[in-house]
Amino acid sequence: MIRAGIIGSTGYAGQELVRLLLNHKDVELTWFGSRSYIDERYSSIFGNMFQLADDICKDDNIEEMMEQTDVIFTATPQGLCASLVNENVLSRVKVIDLSADFRLKDVGVYEQWYKITHKSPQFIEEAVYGLTEINRDKVKAARLLANPGCYTTCSILSLYPLVKEGLVDAQSIIVDAKSGVSGAGRGAKVQNLYCEVNESMKAYGVLTHRHTPEIEEQLGYAAGEDIRIIFTPHLVPMNRGILVTAYANLMKQVSYEEVRAAYDKYYRDEYFIRMLEQDVCPETRWVEGSNFVDINFKLDGRTNRIVVMGALDNVVKGAAGQAVQNMNLMFGLPERTGLELVPMFP
Amino acid sequence: MIRAGIIGSTGYAGQELVRLLLNHKDVELTWFGSRSYIDERYSSIFGNMFQLADDICKDDNIEEMMEQTDVIFTATPQGLCASLVNENVLSRVKVIDLSADFRLKDVGVYEQWYKITHKSPQFIEEAVYGLTEINRDKVKAARLLANPGCYTTCSILSLYPLVKEGLVDAQSIIVDAKSGVSGAGRGAKVQNLYCEVNESMKAYGVLTHRHTPEIEEQLGYAAGEDIRIIFTPHLVPMNRGILVTAYANLMKQVSYEEVRAAYDKYYRDEYFIRMLEQDVCPETRWVEGSNFVDINFKLDGRTNRIVVMGALDNVVKGAAGQAVQNMNLMFGLPERTGLELVPMFP
Amino acid sequence: MIRAGIIGSTGYAGQELVRLLLNHKDVELTWFGSRSYIDERYSSIFGNMFQLADDICKDDNIEEMMEQTDVIFTATPQGLCASLVNENVLSRVKVIDLSADFRLKDVGVYEQWYKITHKSPQFIEEAVYGLTEINRDKVKAARLLANPGCYTTCSILSLYPLVKEGLVDAQSIIVDAKSGVSGAGRGAKVQNLYCEVNESMKAYGVLTHRHTPEIEEQLGYAAGEDIRIIFTPHLVPMNRGILVTAYANLMKQVSYEEVRAAYDKYYRDEYFIRMLEQDVCPETRWVEGSNFVDINFKLDGRTNRIVVMGALDNVVKGAAGQAVQNMNLMFGLPERTGLELVPMFP
Amino acid sequence: MIRAGIIGSTGYAGQELVRLLLNHKDVELTWFGSRSYIDERYSSIFGNMFQLADDICKDDNIEEMMEQTDVIFTATPQGLCASLVNENVLSRVKVIDLSADFRLKDVGVYEQWYKITHKSPQFIEEAVYGLTEINRDKVKAARLLANPGCYTTCSILSLYPLVKEGLVDAQSIIVDAKSGVSGAGRGAKVQNLYCEVNESMKAYGVLTHRHTPEIEEQLGYAAGEDIRIIFTPHLVPMNRGILVTAYANLMKQVSYEEVRAAYDKYYRDEYFIRMLEQDVCPETRWVEGSNFVDINFKLDGRTNRIVVMGALDNVVKGAAGQAVQNMNLMFGLPERTGLELVPMFP
Repeated sequence: MIRAGIIGSTGYAGQELVRLLLNHKDVELTWFGSRSYIDERYSSIFGNMFQLADDICKDDNIEEMMEQTDVIFTATPQGLCASLVNENVLSRVKVIDLSADFRLKDVGVYEQWYKITHKSPQFIEEAVYGLTEINRDKVKAARLLANPGCYTTCSILSLYPLVKEGLVDAQSIIVDAKSGVSGAGRGAKVQNLYCEVNESMKAYGVLTHRHTPEIEEQLGYAAGEDIRIIFTPHLVPMNRGILVTAYANLMKQVSYEEVRAAYDKYYRDEYFIRMLEQDVCPETRWVEGSNFVDINFKLDGRTNRIVVMGALDNVVKGAAGQAVQNMNLMFGLPERTGLELVPMFP
Repeated sequence: MIRAGIIGSTGYAGQELVRLLLNHKDVELTWFGSRSYIDERYSSIFGNMFQLADDICKDDNIEEMMEQTDVIFTATPQGLCASLVNENVLSRVKVIDLSADFRLKDVGVYEQWYKITHKSPQFIEEAVYGLTEINRDKVKAARLLANPGCYTTCSILSLYPLVKEGLVDAQSIIVDAKSGVSGAGRGAKVQNLYCEVNESMKAYGVLTHRHTPEIEEQLGYAAGEDIRIIFTPHLVPMNRGILVTAYANLMKQVSYEEVRAAYDKYYRDEYFIRMLEQDVCPETRWVEGSNFVDINFKLDGRTNRIVVMGALDNVVKGAAGQAVQNMNLMFGLPERTGLELVPMFP
Repeated sequence: MIRAGIIGSTGYAGQELVRLLLNHKDVELTWFGSRSYIDERYSSIFGNMFQLADDICKDDNIEEMMEQTDVIFTATPQGLCASLVNENVLSRVKVIDLSADFRLKDVGVYEQWYKITHKSPQFIEEAVYGLTEINRDKVKAARLLANPGCYTTCSILSLYPLVKEGLVDAQSIIVDAKSGVSGAGRGAKVQNLYCEVNESMKAYGVLTHRHTPEIEEQLGYAAGEDIRIIFTPHLVPMNRGILVTAYANLMKQVSYEEVRAAYDKYYRDEYFIRMLEQDVCPETRWVEGSNFVDINFKLDGRTNRIVVMGALDNVVKGAAGQAVQNMNLMFGLPERTGLELVPMFP
Repeated sequence: MIRAGIIGSTGYAGQELVRLLLNHKDVELTWFGSRSYIDERYSSIFGNMFQLADDICKDDNIEEMMEQTDVIFTATPQGLCASLVNENVLSRVKVIDLSADFRLKDVGVYEQWYKITHKSPQFIEEAVYGLTEINRDKVKAARLLANPGCYTTCSILSLYPLVKEGLVDAQSIIVDAKSGVSGAGRGAKVQNLYCEVNESMKAYGVLTHRHTPEIEEQLGYAAGEDIRIIFTPHLVPMNRGILVTAYANLMKQVSYEEVRAAYDKYYRDEYFIRMLEQDVCPETRWVEGSNFVDINFKLDGRTNRIVVMGALDNVVKGAAGQAVQNMNLMFGLPERTGLELVPMFP
């Protein structure tokens, strides 16, 4: 049994980790970390866990934690994981960071977009960017894993084959993304109250959202050049789900079959990536509660552009699910273990 | 492997059966019945099932079906199951009926409330009412199982120990129930359109809802007398979930501990019934996607009454989940098989 | 023109007052009070008010305020209005209090349920309970008006004729009430976050909700005796609306027509109370944005009880709308001025 | 008094016309047309109208209708208005068509996108495209008014000054639009059921939506050339509201002030168009129930593009509200009459 601990177990991503790991046959949850709810029973905060996870929440005492765990998930605000890792930690436990601390290879870009000083820049190089389908081999060997952002997972996976195969002008990419409210976290802010969000839609963080450089870096690797994209996130009145609608200029006239072949080249054997049938548009309801990403595209002969659509569940494939997928690889388990979740509808 | 077929697999309860049975290690789904979608791919109707259940929907050819199945679930409108069963069928396959055809022992009451002539009254006596926690032993031996209604499961389980132990006047019971919209089914009706339901709440079927006699019959058995209750269902703008708030006059002054002991007497070892801690109110979000029923109560010394609250997921414990729970017993499997679902939040 | 000021203008009730008063032809809004947003532009908090109410929010300086207003609305937490009024204030401006400070005549009951010491018990006697349809004449003469609670307005108006005419046993009343989330206010609390409320339903404040004694006092006047009821509020995932489903034992066998006549006796000429046609159930969507209360009832011969249903918009008839209705009377204006709002659907 | 009749009064746009016209001091509603609900009471279909509009619904008898009306609104599916108008009709009453029949000047484009033969192509030339702020003078003189689509109103008004002033490459425009569900109409379709829409988001009609040529035609006039854009509509789980996020390449480097000046040039005196302050993003909640369009933009120096955002209420400014605005002009009334609606929140 893998002994797992979670720092930040009372946020939405942390709670989803608990849900997934409780059903993971090779994992035992041994540490429920939560600064906000120290000494409280986990199930008193999340009633769904009553009689399933009645453990007591603890502060993040890393020394004690290392003795009780083989892997530590950090589902915390930026900065915490960077302040925590050191050679001692990484030599004793594996660390899977759901925050942004180790996602960007250029510490300057990190500090510019996150307005925070990086506490452990020496580990950035070693950290593996855990977009599993793209970096599978590196993930297997990782000690420190940077779990991708929710918007970024959806955006990159939707566009990767197009960019990698040179079918689109990567500099022309526009990502118009829509997210459910759980992506905003569990902080008590007026802007996230039910009545403020319900029955409304808005863009936010326009041209300034922190997932922008993450998408640019990863798609830049695929493109083989630095790229600049537009990324516009929107808040949608629903709990879960991200829908990405992306636009790009085609490099040449291509057929549906050619583009489809590019996607199949990379995703044919990927269980968690579902390339939909022609003309079927992804919908977030069809992936809810699961680790799937549903992708499709449509070619516009009139403007010589492509419209790409991707949908995932932001707390599963966009956070906790992908983290477990990575954990499975890091511990030599079958990748799907604990993740063969049928999406729940309605 | 148990070979399972579903008649009415494209309604909400039928689809939930598919979700649960796909994850059931001892079951193979061999028949997707759907009159409305004959010859269509199941996953073209429910996109969540893409690459998981790409089977073709078939008409309900019972002869062919019996050859391919060991158990048949009927998740159809009233009348269909009654028109289908006969000695031949029951001798070859087990039948689990999610409709009301075999729930009421008095065929006159059935015909009065459902405005329909019962086609197989001769099997009513044999049919077992599948409220698993109450009728477990009978369920194990059943050939024909009448799976309880969603409102009734929640209402009866919430009140059963009080009535059975004589703590309340069963004739004084008022059940004020609230249901998510999936309970209204997947029929294309104006009244169930998004804009008609969203941002509103209403009572419906006041004093005429068909789950009334079902609750009265079952609680009547517990009370040892015929009872008449008030049952008021309400429609709530959410997908899943039933919340029951019930009221009854106490027979004498009782303490919290005495009432709690009555519940514990019947439910202490029940995995799927969670008696909450004192003063914690059930919420439908904490059972979503799971087979749990959460129950609690509060005593009102001022009026000598009790307020009882129960919450369940209407498509799981209120339909497909309880059906699978019963199937497990009918086939000698551990009762929880395929049902250890952690409630999904948010 | 009546010059109106609002203390607490940035809560949901306060903001609704602004919406209504901006469209009131005889009122000029001269003071936007808000402790939380002092010196901020009102429309920067509520974007709907952009170019309509760009005034600057001010602290509650009562002296300055009195010079600029003829009427002051207090849409604040309990205690503030009581700490504010004195003879000087009441002799210069009219005060309409949307909090509970002056609703209960027995200061002991107030202090027991609200856990707060009343700062101005000497004005409780004078204060008029502003349930307009019941207390119209007293309202006209009021200096200090206690605007009723949202649950109470709906509960009392739904039951008043039954109790007043002695058709029901007032001691048997059970009020099962359901409210939209705006009733919980605009405070930044985790429990009111979108993801915590959406897709769920729960009872709360069971047997302890503060609107209980208010209903008991007012219906007690109608009954001519002290009464004890059960009141159970529930939270519903929608912005606005209260639905009350109430139950009571009938004193004798009565016909639909007799009961209907009792309602007509009191409400026949009431514009804002709509007695629905037989068998039509109130729905909150049909009153949204308006000052209407929709009421109906159903008789249960089987149990000799009555089921009463009422629906209103908690921020209009349940708060700001009734406050304006009372203001109209207090200033000698036609009661409906500014309130002939057609409910908005969908 | 203007006597107004509505054909299609029981759809969402028709019902909103009723709401607005009931509060319009110069209009008397004399005809409630509805093929689906002939001889039924209007308020039995829309309970909000109880005691406000208890009229009986009638079939569309145009001869009888003309005798009782001065203006006819057609809020019907495409084709009906075109089959109805003739010289006799237009000489006796004014016609405001909320369908697409007279929006496109090129009948071939109409027939290609709508798959329908136009019954009155001879009136297309005369019909005035009722985007009020752009075509005000023509509207005043119109007999036959083509009321713009909801998506188109939002898209065109958001982009018009940029295109007209040549600040952007009109051929590069991408409109990513999000709509509430009322835009899908009141037809009883499975895809619009509560449970199918709630908690999900999707694109639909990708590259084939019928509002595309309408936007292209109108922005083409502004650009002075034929243009081809990408328009992607999305369905959002909310009742009302459209949010447009549009992208375009800038023709040259421009400052915020220069672009703002372009908007001010056209919209400075427009009451219903609210140019938000720098960095404030439009949100649909801030326009709900009102005739406002909220617009803003953001310049991306990194990619030399502009992001434009617009929000309106699809049933008001996107349908019934703009229709009334046009009616006011056609009858010589002040443009805002009956439309000074404060947006309702929450």
